[in-house]
Amino acid sequence: MQNFVFDNKTKIIFGKDQEQVVGEESVVYGKKLLLHYGGGSIKESGLYDSVLNSLKEQGIEVIELGGVKPNPRVTLVREGVELCKKHDIDFILSVGGGSVIDSAKAIAAGAKYEGDVWDFFTGEAVVEDCLPTGVVLTIPAAGSESSAGTVVTNENGDYKRAFGHITLRPQFAILNPELTYTLPAYQTAAGVTDMMAHILERYFTNEKNVELTDRLCEATLRTIINNAHTVLEDPTNYAARAEIMWSGTIAHNDLLNTGRIGDWGSHDIEHELSGIYDITHGAGLAIIFPAWMKYVYKHDIHLFAQFANRVWGVEIDLNNPEKTALAGIKKTEEFFSSIGMPVTLREENIDDDHFEEMARKATERGPLGNFIKLYEEDVYNIYQLAK
Amino acid sequence: MQNFVFDNKTKIIFGKDQEQVVGEESVVYGKKLLLHYGGGSIKESGLYDSVLNSLKEQGIEVIELGGVKPNPRVTLVREGVELCKKHDIDFILSVGGGSVIDSAKAIAAGAKYEGDVWDFFTGEAVVEDCLPTGVVLTIPAAGSESSAGTVVTNENGDYKRAFGHITLRPQFAILNPELTYTLPAYQTAAGVTDMMAHILERYFTNEKNVELTDRLCEATLRTIINNAHTVLEDPTNYAARAEIMWSGTIAHNDLLNTGRIGDWGSHDIEHELSGIYDITHGAGLAIIFPAWMKYVYKHDIHLFAQFANRVWGVEIDLNNPEKTALAGIKKTEEFFSSIGMPVTLREENIDDDHFEEMARKATERGPLGNFIKLYEEDVYNIYQLAK
Repeated sequence: MQNFVFDNKTKIIFGKDQEQVVGEESVVYGKKLLLHYGGGSIKESGLYDSVLNSLKEQGIEVIELGGVKPNPRVTLVREGVELCKKHDIDFILSVGGGSVIDSAKAIAAGAKYEGDVWDFFTGEAVVEDCLPTGVVLTIPAAGSESSAGTVVTNENGDYKRAFGHITLRPQFAILNPELTYTLPAYQTAAGVTDMMAHILERYFTNEKNVELTDRLCEATLRTIINNAHTVLEDPTNYAARAEIMWSGTIAHNDLLNTGRIGDWGSHDIEHELSGIYDITHGAGLAIIFPAWMKYVYKHDIHLFAQFANRVWGVEIDLNNPEKTALAGIKKTEEFFSSIGMPVTLREENIDDDHFEEMARKATERGPLGNFIKLYEEDVYNIYQLAK
Repeated sequence: MQNFVFDNKTKIIFGKDQEQVVGEESVVYGKKLLLHYGGGSIKESGLYDSVLNSLKEQGIEVIELGGVKPNPRVTLVREGVELCKKHDIDFILSVGGGSVIDSAKAIAAGAKYEGDVWDFFTGEAVVEDCLPTGVVLTIPAAGSESSAGTVVTNENGDYKRAFGHITLRPQFAILNPELTYTLPAYQTAAGVTDMMAHILERYFTNEKNVELTDRLCEATLRTIINNAHTVLEDPTNYAARAEIMWSGTIAHNDLLNTGRIGDWGSHDIEHELSGIYDITHGAGLAIIFPAWMKYVYKHDIHLFAQFANRVWGVEIDLNNPEKTALAGIKKTEEFFSSIGMPVTLREENIDDDHFEEMARKATERGPLGNFIKLYEEDVYNIYQLAK
């Protein structure tokens, strides 16, 4: 087990009707707020009105910036930064899913920085301070509501890049499972895949003696797997929506990372895909993760066999642990497929035109991953396996 | 699943040599510090010197208050409160186990209150503010290093009482598993029992649809059970000590409580025991918990069968789930016994002289527990079952 610091100060406010406390939770941080959101869905659902009422009851002045798209763009982030500086904003509230929250975090960092916000994503600058943020979550998936990271796409060159800093963790996150009732099946399934991928990235580690976090990962994976079909078949099932929503936060609040070093190669490989093709991040992960698993499992067959056994209930074949390991990978792929996710690039009409370019761009800052270091050729091979 | 707020701001600093950062972590909160500890063990081990050096390097002025005993006394707490007021203390650092931390938390609350600190324990006053605290943990057991609660004994009448408030959570907790190498086997086993009891109190709930927390509880219990014999047989096994230490914090940081209502009857029943007989809290729990289980399991045989199956690996007998449930209780009792804990009052030379008095005192503020409400007669019956 590695030494670690676990420091997650995000206050989680979970349950029915909890969006109604957003005003009193926000006013703690000031009276001038940037309200950040995506498209029209929060207006149709009534959430927009309900949030605005709660903010106004506390006498909060609201500046709005909507229009965040999936794979949020740095152009809109820059616009947000300008707004914050111009209006002397105290606090940023995101109402939406991971894209909105990531965009808000980038704005929060940019608002306290003199240079261009993209500098944080290239590593040219390091965050020293940022505006406080809060979240009303509508899509359980990215775990950004209590994570210290953000992922943004730079349209100029189609780069999708991430950076993290502890000050990026939101001050609070409001999670009402009822707000997820209207999520389309595809987005629900992509969210399920994303949160599973967050756990899998942490699970496959070279670090030994991390039994507690192994088991916490397995517990969360099993809960997600057990509830995924229920939320797809019965979208207003509160109990199942609640299990999925809380699991999505736990998957990515860094608890499951304590004492171990995650891999994150699959995420980086997927980022190139959704940077170029603009496919849903979760769908990209459903394609890339099984391919990654097939490419790397021989590095630690026992860990893959443990995964197959404890998460998927595959009996361990002591005479042939590789058989057990492969059965677990197959179960993972079949599961993604069963919830309506693509598991091959072909299903998304993506051919091999950009494999070389994506492999090059993914590795231009060095090899990917930690479980096994992946070089340009490896990344290319994984795209091939995902065809 | 119940609505919940999860808000745990304690920064966990885990691993080898981490006590060396105590100065820089403490100085954030001020330059006048009350150093609170127990007996001479931290002086013998060199921890005292190492902490003091780190504090002095940061120019922190240190006022000392040692002498905390297991089942910490309100008399010493009052002394600490006076010291804080007299010296205008900014920050309280506990170096020790749950008793030292609990004592420090009570001092922290009392230091900001005009009346007598015991008022918080009787419910006559509610904490509004308290001094910030930090922890260097030496005994993994109570989970007090990131909990919002404190338990103190009033020698005047032998009352052991608890209270909780979110401001009581320490600002940071330093957990170095190496500091636990010298813990005697008995104290190690009592700690293991205490942390298991913290999970069991949360596990046995009437709340339905709490799958994620059920599974996180089971994951933590299995980790503790898997590592307990290792730390007893090989006390300097870093990996096993680390699993136990981190599990002890997770067991009681309120994550495993999210969405559910814990029971806590066994803790209250045990508090009367250790309030009068001054036995180790963990040993008292090893005696009381199996007796409580036998008394209440019929209230939800399926939950007890799930516990037997998922935690102890007992196969579920669908035709006779009660048999499965009882097998789980037996395994729990046998496990406590196998790590050297008493599982009957007889083993601690406690007869039935005070059963009536303890049952009366335990319930004088109302019935205990939530899984089943326990009245005076029930508590008496549980002491009888524990004979």
